[in-house]
Amino acid sequence: MSPGFAGNAPAVAALDWGTTRLRAWLIDGGGKVLAERRGDDGLITAREKGFATVLEGHLAAMGAPETLPVIICGMAGSRQGWIEAPYVGVPAPIGAILRGAARIEGERRDIRIVPGLAQRLADAPDVMRGEETQLAGAGLPAKGRHLACMPGTHSKWVAVEDGAVVGFGTWPTGELFSVLAAHSILKHSLGEHPAPVTADNPFFRQWCERALGEGGDVTSKLFAIRAAGLLQDLKSQDAAACLSGLLIGGEIASAKRRYGAGDAPVVLIASGALASLYRAALDLAGLAFRTVDADEAVRAGLIEAARENGMIGAAK
Amino acid sequence: MSPGFAGNAPAVAALDWGTTRLRAWLIDGGGKVLAERRGDDGLITAREKGFATVLEGHLAAMGAPETLPVIICGMAGSRQGWIEAPYVGVPAPIGAILRGAARIEGERRDIRIVPGLAQRLADAPDVMRGEETQLAGAGLPAKGRHLACMPGTHSKWVAVEDGAVVGFGTWPTGELFSVLAAHSILKHSLGEHPAPVTADNPFFRQWCERALGEGGDVTSKLFAIRAAGLLQDLKSQDAAACLSGLLIGGEIASAKRRYGAGDAPVVLIASGALASLYRAALDLAGLAFRTVDADEAVRAGLIEAARENGMIGAAK
Repeated sequence: MSPGFAGNAPAVAALDWGTTRLRAWLIDGGGKVLAERRGDDGLITAREKGFATVLEGHLAAMGAPETLPVIICGMAGSRQGWIEAPYVGVPAPIGAILRGAARIEGERRDIRIVPGLAQRLADAPDVMRGEETQLAGAGLPAKGRHLACMPGTHSKWVAVEDGAVVGFGTWPTGELFSVLAAHSILKHSLGEHPAPVTADNPFFRQWCERALGEGGDVTSKLFAIRAAGLLQDLKSQDAAACLSGLLIGGEIASAKRRYGAGDAPVVLIASGALASLYRAALDLAGLAFRTVDADEAVRAGLIEAARENGMIGAAK
Repeated sequence: MSPGFAGNAPAVAALDWGTTRLRAWLIDGGGKVLAERRGDDGLITAREKGFATVLEGHLAAMGAPETLPVIICGMAGSRQGWIEAPYVGVPAPIGAILRGAARIEGERRDIRIVPGLAQRLADAPDVMRGEETQLAGAGLPAKGRHLACMPGTHSKWVAVEDGAVVGFGTWPTGELFSVLAAHSILKHSLGEHPAPVTADNPFFRQWCERALGEGGDVTSKLFAIRAAGLLQDLKSQDAAACLSGLLIGGEIASAKRRYGAGDAPVVLIASGALASLYRAALDLAGLAFRTVDADEAVRAGLIEAARENGMIGAAK
């Protein structure tokens, strides 16, 4: 037992290991968080430094015992990651997804990576890694049809029925914003360092409503942001709000068209500023929703994954 | 009279001067083409070298007399260009647009730039420069409602009624292709040097049909190209065809939704490989169309602009 944990020994380390960032926690046998670390050594950095080196650095900094088992979710399990954890095909019960964690061979510790999800539809192939764990930790009801929205670089919308993922889709909203702001003609409209967009910006709301009215057609309105700069004296900080509103509104309109509004409120799994923007946009779309904090959801999902893989005891 | 032109003296030089390229012609008093030049010294290069220097270089190379007047269309008349030729607001008769060419002061020659078009709608601001001249040269009937499609970096769709532009829109299809291929996650799918897409590629046709079925919603399908690489072994040359089909199909679906199919065939103003792709996509969309060569249209439009501004005689 490590003396640093006031009597509670860590039973497992849990990592959300994405493309550019990671978060790590030490968890005791009852699922309680004992320590937390954040780093910007995501997959891109870890490919250079070595995944084991990065992992051991964070574990040592938290005072983790040398044989503490580790559960990981996210892009560390992708083809470009540490090992490729196989995809679980949908439809799949959420618990069953977590249960299939892939073990990394040849390491002193028991290190496992949660599988990603694959939708092997001929006309709508899709994949996710990390969001399945967030979803598992979001506390969705075991019965009924539910729709989850997980905004981000590649926003995911997931349809869940009676505790099983039945379908999902990806809208690359965050990536489109960054790529268009930096590399398209809109860089002249947004300027070099676009100000953070806030949900109370009237341009965010206006362009979000425009996109909602177009059923997900975003491309017909992109150039209008540039034209509004030339003809209507649109300022750069407002141009960023236009682009954000247009893309988020387009995502919501498109997802609503694909999955329907549903009976239960949309479960918005998000944190911080992004959560505020999506809450405002879902309101404008007339969609009922409730918010689950994304940071807490992924941590809860990792603890659940540790349980499902027998690394800690069952929940009390 | 210059000895190089077999008896016909040039009456005007005409330039289509875009962002990255220019084309120049010497035209006689009857509207006949006497010489042609192409260069990659568009607006970007000309801003460094000087517009007058670039212009005189091309004119000298064609043996143009020192006082030959010049008519220009395109981005050379934008705020970042030589001078900003004012926009003509729509609705506007096509002839009236050409007539308002702005004269560049302080030059030995009579140099004029055709105005761009502005659509000053609060919720759909838009601008064009250069396409108005192409449109003028496309030989649209003087009566009836017609829809023109001018594909490119920023594709324009223009609604014309009884010879007047009544509305238009921009779809940044070519730019989205370049930017997503180079800077988004799709660069892993398309590879470093995507092969040219051809209209007979079954992936082009398939993804074009998918986009047509979604009414212009493109963003919900972008990530599926990446997923198809992971799950369906999609090859890089075919990934480029998917992206091209998706974007072009999305543009056509969106424009069709905005402007309707119309009674008369769509006038596709395009050249080369791009014309082939749009012909295939318009067929898949079930839209009747006829093609006008874009190179010939802009030249004819510039000759028309020279006439409308009294630089050469009226058409016989």
